[in-house]
Amino acid sequence: MKRKAVVLLSGGLDSATCLTIARSQGFAPVCLAIQYGQRHQVELERARQVAAATGADDFRVVSVDLRAIGGSALTGEVAVPKSRSDSEMSSGIPPTYVPARNTVFLALALGLAEVVGARDIFIGVNAVDYSGYPDCRPEFIRAFEALANLGTKAGVEGTRFEIHAPLSGMTKAEIIRQGVKLGVNYGLTHSCYDPTPDGRACGRCDSCALRRRGFEQAGVPDPTRYANG
Amino acid sequence: MKRKAVVLLSGGLDSATCLTIARSQGFAPVCLAIQYGQRHQVELERARQVAAATGADDFRVVSVDLRAIGGSALTGEVAVPKSRSDSEMSSGIPPTYVPARNTVFLALALGLAEVVGARDIFIGVNAVDYSGYPDCRPEFIRAFEALANLGTKAGVEGTRFEIHAPLSGMTKAEIIRQGVKLGVNYGLTHSCYDPTPDGRACGRCDSCALRRRGFEQAGVPDPTRYANG
Repeated sequence: MKRKAVVLLSGGLDSATCLTIARSQGFAPVCLAIQYGQRHQVELERARQVAAATGADDFRVVSVDLRAIGGSALTGEVAVPKSRSDSEMSSGIPPTYVPARNTVFLALALGLAEVVGARDIFIGVNAVDYSGYPDCRPEFIRAFEALANLGTKAGVEGTRFEIHAPLSGMTKAEIIRQGVKLGVNYGLTHSCYDPTPDGRACGRCDSCALRRRGFEQAGVPDPTRYANG
Repeated sequence: MKRKAVVLLSGGLDSATCLTIARSQGFAPVCLAIQYGQRHQVELERARQVAAATGADDFRVVSVDLRAIGGSALTGEVAVPKSRSDSEMSSGIPPTYVPARNTVFLALALGLAEVVGARDIFIGVNAVDYSGYPDCRPEFIRAFEALANLGTKAGVEGTRFEIHAPLSGMTKAEIIRQGVKLGVNYGLTHSCYDPTPDGRACGRCDSCALRRRGFEQAGVPDPTRYANG
């Protein structure tokens, strides 16, 4: 029987690739999407479609109301920045940072891993391309792994949790090339921080900019429907 | 101006004492209660009352649906054990363990701390009396502190987060004596894992047993209304 792994799935390009990598490594994925009060609900629907398309039929949604904490453009208190230059994008931590988000997400993934008997957790963070998010760094991932082994019944009983961040050292273009090789349908994925009401990507936020450039650099046609050019 | 501290508040005896200690140390508490799908909603109401009685007027509730993860007596899938002997209570991790609960709670407290500009977080865990919860141990608390400094914008920008667990080395009786000295109104607090529909304590679960014995050993009258003797 295949070993289960909990895979955090957002509906985005990175986590879709991460899920496909987990499958290619022989894991049976238990997909976990987090409804955290993000501006756009299109993400969750795309996550569900990505899971189905990847043959991962165990798909769970956990709600956590990060809006009650606030402090981020992604949960609605601050404007999503648009059409920023490369130097603006690569300086500092962006307003789309959600305080302690990956700590919360990994904590929920850890709880689910304990319940389903998995010791492997996949998260699609990457630290090479612009991101500026402190909770995407390899040293953060290692610190969470240490915490997981101390703070759980399974850890105390001898399970050694492993947090896999297979995209960690990859550029966006490398992620896309790897995903295409493994058959990811990027037409299902969603990256935009600020989509139109009918779910099209704005084409101008940092996330759209990174996605577009990633496809260009990978030499792969971008299947995204952008609202603006 | 007083320094803010985020204080996790459950409505129980321990966290009420922890809040009062935080205030006695000169912090301005930002209380955080987590609605996680616990069986009984009386907890949250008591948390609100405890905060008000302690003069902590910043009280926030964040919802996270841990029922979607499951695996615990406290979220309803497993029965709450009753009338266990001391040796049963002190052996192993109890079914009231909620997978990765304190990791999730501290992660949410960390997010809130970043947003309100606090670098101190209080949690009322204690590891001396029976508890058997791996995420109450001092080594877990230290590991979370390391994670907090790596995984946040504030940490990257130089804030050193401190996780305070002032009850860590205290028995239940010591906690109660300390709380009485600081003026905690234990009549407002709620410990029972399985209260009656009108909010009275069952008197027979592990948490009631520990509470009763704590008051006895402290030589303090127990203000709790128990349903059973």
